[in-house]
Amino acid sequence: MRFSVNTRELNEAVSVVTKAMPSNATLPILEGIYMYAANDTLFIKCTDLSLQIETEIPAIIDDEGSAVLPGKLFSDLVKKFSGDTIDFESDGNTMNIRSRRVKSSIQIQNADEYPEMMRVDDEFSADIPQNKLKSMIKQVIFSVSNDETKAILNGVCLEFDSDNTLVMVALDGFRIAMRKEKINNCTGKKSVVIPKRAMQEIAAVLSSDDSEVKLIFSSTHIKIDFGGTKVISRLLDGEYVNYKGILPKNFATRVLINCEELKNSTERALLMAREAKSNRIKLMFANNTLTITANSEKGNINDEIEVQLVGKDLEIAFNATYIQDVMRVLDDECVYLNMNNAVTPCVIVPVEGEAFYYMILPVRLFTGA
Amino acid sequence: MRFSVNTRELNEAVSVVTKAMPSNATLPILEGIYMYAANDTLFIKCTDLSLQIETEIPAIIDDEGSAVLPGKLFSDLVKKFSGDTIDFESDGNTMNIRSRRVKSSIQIQNADEYPEMMRVDDEFSADIPQNKLKSMIKQVIFSVSNDETKAILNGVCLEFDSDNTLVMVALDGFRIAMRKEKINNCTGKKSVVIPKRAMQEIAAVLSSDDSEVKLIFSSTHIKIDFGGTKVISRLLDGEYVNYKGILPKNFATRVLINCEELKNSTERALLMAREAKSNRIKLMFANNTLTITANSEKGNINDEIEVQLVGKDLEIAFNATYIQDVMRVLDDECVYLNMNNAVTPCVIVPVEGEAFYYMILPVRLFTGA
Repeated sequence: MRFSVNTRELNEAVSVVTKAMPSNATLPILEGIYMYAANDTLFIKCTDLSLQIETEIPAIIDDEGSAVLPGKLFSDLVKKFSGDTIDFESDGNTMNIRSRRVKSSIQIQNADEYPEMMRVDDEFSADIPQNKLKSMIKQVIFSVSNDETKAILNGVCLEFDSDNTLVMVALDGFRIAMRKEKINNCTGKKSVVIPKRAMQEIAAVLSSDDSEVKLIFSSTHIKIDFGGTKVISRLLDGEYVNYKGILPKNFATRVLINCEELKNSTERALLMAREAKSNRIKLMFANNTLTITANSEKGNINDEIEVQLVGKDLEIAFNATYIQDVMRVLDDECVYLNMNNAVTPCVIVPVEGEAFYYMILPVRLFTGA
Repeated sequence: MRFSVNTRELNEAVSVVTKAMPSNATLPILEGIYMYAANDTLFIKCTDLSLQIETEIPAIIDDEGSAVLPGKLFSDLVKKFSGDTIDFESDGNTMNIRSRRVKSSIQIQNADEYPEMMRVDDEFSADIPQNKLKSMIKQVIFSVSNDETKAILNGVCLEFDSDNTLVMVALDGFRIAMRKEKINNCTGKKSVVIPKRAMQEIAAVLSSDDSEVKLIFSSTHIKIDFGGTKVISRLLDGEYVNYKGILPKNFATRVLINCEELKNSTERALLMAREAKSNRIKLMFANNTLTITANSEKGNINDEIEVQLVGKDLEIAFNATYIQDVMRVLDDECVYLNMNNAVTPCVIVPVEGEAFYYMILPVRLFTGA
């Protein structure tokens, strides 16, 4: 195996694929980077057996071949190489790497021992602009459950419909986050659940422009094809919970509120609520004013925001971090808070359209709050 | 107690004084911020009994008084206040704080119970530009010993001489860092040792311009007077170690080297050395070339730098982090590495002048390295 690549291109490729590299693998070879050089191309990949990221860069190849290099050492080292190109040459046990006046020899592992991910047959597919997919993931992923006893909730549910819509859902028993967007070339109706970690790494690889990526599904895996780069993840087994029945439809109190003001007031109140180790803040809606209060043994806080209130006055309490999580990811200037009473959920929806739907359960309201 | 202050000015003042606030104080009142309002001025301070930072801002005062507020809660809260001014009013038990539509009541503690730092009588003083003092601290502090059994080495030694020079020294048994600068209005000869934490916080408060600050010493304390802001620290008891006798004077090998190149090569070699958990790199000086090598079970690295070598060829090994620490803080393009043999220290000095002097002990050289 003997080839040369551009240092900057190699660094970019390594930083993409190592997102899938586990840091404490039970199988040591998984802490490596798989390389295969052939046809003027260096192909590299990492996998933790659940998630795989692979990519390719142009290479000048004198001798084809494959090898697995120690991932952390190699990726740290190539970051520090200052030459424009890096030359690689392997004798089967060692990879000799050379760039300008730096020479390094690194022990390699046999590429034949590197586990192969299952091939992802194209049973179902859809196209979506990268920036749209990136924003959808960011706006639901914080609601994924971390409770390992509820495996299916440790992922994000994607519901494709044949009318070219994608609904993305995450829920953890206390809140639901939903995003809905138009997509393209959707080949039918399908519901899948993708692990949270895969979704995080997919979002990290996605660019912020509107170039399209293809989502390809087999019965067990998803593959996202970026052209040179491909991300493959297994899907979570089982049916996602049927959340649709619990979404409230009619509301006694509807409040139009500025997101930035709600975010700032919630953050201030949370500082006081945190002292009480409860994160509990109280919201009082009356006279077109929202009054947010919190207290602890160190004191109390009282914060007012002008709102447009339609319907009944209401007192309701929440875990402030749940409101904060939603306000942090929204770009909208204003939203509606839709509620019924102090013991049923609050629903946060856009002023127009139905791009998102957040539902947050209240916490118990104490008179003293 | 009733007064108003500008929100931005209060935030800046709070962020300065809380650098001295301990996060886990044995005396709970020390986790508070002391406030005293009088004469159109709000005076605030924090101390951990070893270090005190105090400052003042203009205030509109209706009723003079003092109080101690819970430090973390109060400083986090005022950061989130959006109004231009904040109004304070205390009834002795509670501080009522108001800014625009936000109201908060915070439990306060009696200011009489807040410990008073010793007054710092002006027994000795000197003036120094802030940027010069800041750079001196940065360039020696990393060599302070963290070994708590050698208390005197847990500080930075400042040696003032009546010819208006200041020498700053830190050493940890494996290396020495020294900086020397001209200062102004030095009232005599004096040697003091200031705790590392105080030096860090002093550096953080110092600005990057050349306005002068006055260093004032009593027999037990230092006070740095920035005008409104004053930093007071106790001095460490005892004599600093007599390091002057061990500084080598004559060298068999003198090497002129580019700092950036030495830093980059050391960092690359360290990545390999770290795999061997030794951080040990070998330096070979010969034929106007420095060859840096390191090896581990995962491989080896060999890096060449052009140098100007005067004197004998030499092979010597170091803990790479000690070289890295020096190269990270120097702004010089080139330095001299002065050495004698593989078992005596390497001295790093400037190309011209004597602004700094670093001494690093070598580690044992193995033939296999």
